[in-house]
Amino acid sequence: MSHAVMTIAQLNTFLARDFPQVFTPDSAFSIVSVGYRESVMRCRFDQRHLRPGGTISGPTMMTLADVGLYIAILASIGPVAMAVTTNLNINFLSKPAPRDLIARTKLLRLGRRLAVGEVSIYSDGEEEDMVAHVTGTYAIPQERAGA
Amino acid sequence: MSHAVMTIAQLNTFLARDFPQVFTPDSAFSIVSVGYRESVMRCRFDQRHLRPGGTISGPTMMTLADVGLYIAILASIGPVAMAVTTNLNINFLSKPAPRDLIARTKLLRLGRRLAVGEVSIYSDGEEEDMVAHVTGTYAIPQERAGA
Amino acid sequence: MSHAVMTIAQLNTFLARDFPQVFTPDSAFSIVSVGYRESVMRCRFDQRHLRPGGTISGPTMMTLADVGLYIAILASIGPVAMAVTTNLNINFLSKPAPRDLIARTKLLRLGRRLAVGEVSIYSDGEEEDMVAHVTGTYAIPQERAGA
Amino acid sequence: MSHAVMTIAQLNTFLARDFPQVFTPDSAFSIVSVGYRESVMRCRFDQRHLRPGGTISGPTMMTLADVGLYIAILASIGPVAMAVTTNLNINFLSKPAPRDLIARTKLLRLGRRLAVGEVSIYSDGEEEDMVAHVTGTYAIPQERAGA
Repeated sequence: MSHAVMTIAQLNTFLARDFPQVFTPDSAFSIVSVGYRESVMRCRFDQRHLRPGGTISGPTMMTLADVGLYIAILASIGPVAMAVTTNLNINFLSKPAPRDLIARTKLLRLGRRLAVGEVSIYSDGEEEDMVAHVTGTYAIPQERAGA
Repeated sequence: MSHAVMTIAQLNTFLARDFPQVFTPDSAFSIVSVGYRESVMRCRFDQRHLRPGGTISGPTMMTLADVGLYIAILASIGPVAMAVTTNLNINFLSKPAPRDLIARTKLLRLGRRLAVGEVSIYSDGEEEDMVAHVTGTYAIPQERAGA
Repeated sequence: MSHAVMTIAQLNTFLARDFPQVFTPDSAFSIVSVGYRESVMRCRFDQRHLRPGGTISGPTMMTLADVGLYIAILASIGPVAMAVTTNLNINFLSKPAPRDLIARTKLLRLGRRLAVGEVSIYSDGEEEDMVAHVTGTYAIPQERAGA
Repeated sequence: MSHAVMTIAQLNTFLARDFPQVFTPDSAFSIVSVGYRESVMRCRFDQRHLRPGGTISGPTMMTLADVGLYIAILASIGPVAMAVTTNLNINFLSKPAPRDLIARTKLLRLGRRLAVGEVSIYSDGEEEDMVAHVTGTYAIPQERAGA
């Protein structure tokens, strides 16, 4: 197993510049750790993400998974602003608790053109009970030769 | 083909009360039309939804599709606050233009317990070129007998 | 709308040579029609495809959809033996009747590298009631320059 | 972690009677092991499952995953002939080697009505390199009270 090619600090700088809409200073999302072909993200519990019944919304979890995949790719191949999601499939498994979410991403395939990964989402501290499971595919632009 | 059982005005009132996080007065999402087993939604173009390169973000489109499915279900069976998404699959097809998005939802199946639908997302005025395609499943709570 | 670049007869010859495992002379699958970015396939009703309860099996429908997508691609860009499925998502909607299945495929995107399509599967003669809905992605090899 | 409620021998007897089309005496599929919420299946390498280039076909892998999920459910809740797949999503990751496939299934959720699982497919002896990844949902009939 090799190492990540970007640190969390480098990723944060890159994302703040290239995704100011998502990675605002008060963003609910933060990077917990990265490695080669993997990332762990946290989504801070926040009233704005709630659905009726007090649970965290589906779109918040889809966003979290999409970002987790992107960061696992960046951490593995370096800054590629134009990598784009081509497919994302999510299964919602159980009602999340009213607390932070943790998203663990593993890339199942990291090819030259396509990266495929899975993301397991849990309520913080309750990792025996998965809240949602995601698989997603990113297309990687070919002009990254110099990256 | 039968008719919708809720009007757009009734849906807006229901959503504002039960989903104040999403359906704020300044929400980018609005209902264009509803019918039995179908809905059309608009997502107003807004800088906050952009990705690098100036395109609307994937999570915005996933949210739009999820809401379009939910509204098609509400319009067909009446107010069911606790219907929940169990699966959502999205294929991103082309880069959206910097303008409003239109999401056309059709329910492919409306059973007692599960509803399955598809959502076709376009840039407003460019319906020959689909931007994203979504299929999703909602579980319908059984206690809706009195709804 | 342009035309298919291969006829049904050309497709049958190509498939019999390159996919003798699936397109045997007694195969249950046959091409009904093709066009640019579309195909219609038939799956003959056959006891071997049954599940308990007498319905056609899920794997038969997944195979039918995968083949329908492949044929729509071949019909649009010419013989590309090495195009491979990268993702397939199927929703089973209703129990098929004990009769032939019809699969209508439309390509939603036909890029240089990726083709994405949807397949609607019906029991023959009952097209108001969809049996299954599929979306799938094929990767197209780049060495098809001369195709 | 509790135990499987059916043995491999009991599962084979059940499947041979209820799925004679798939579980023929010369079937390529066999159960390697089962546990509570999990199964391991083997698909014997066989010329009939090949695609051009000598690789095992996508539909063979989809069938293997569908069966692996079904057997993990049976092993966990007992014989339920009428459990049906409602959704299956497969990502094809790398070209399988010309040898047996191994499919490892884990149920991520086992509710009263819906079971959701994931299946990791490998070439036998090459488990560091996943060939395909599947998630699937089964609907469980409610009349299983007496099962």
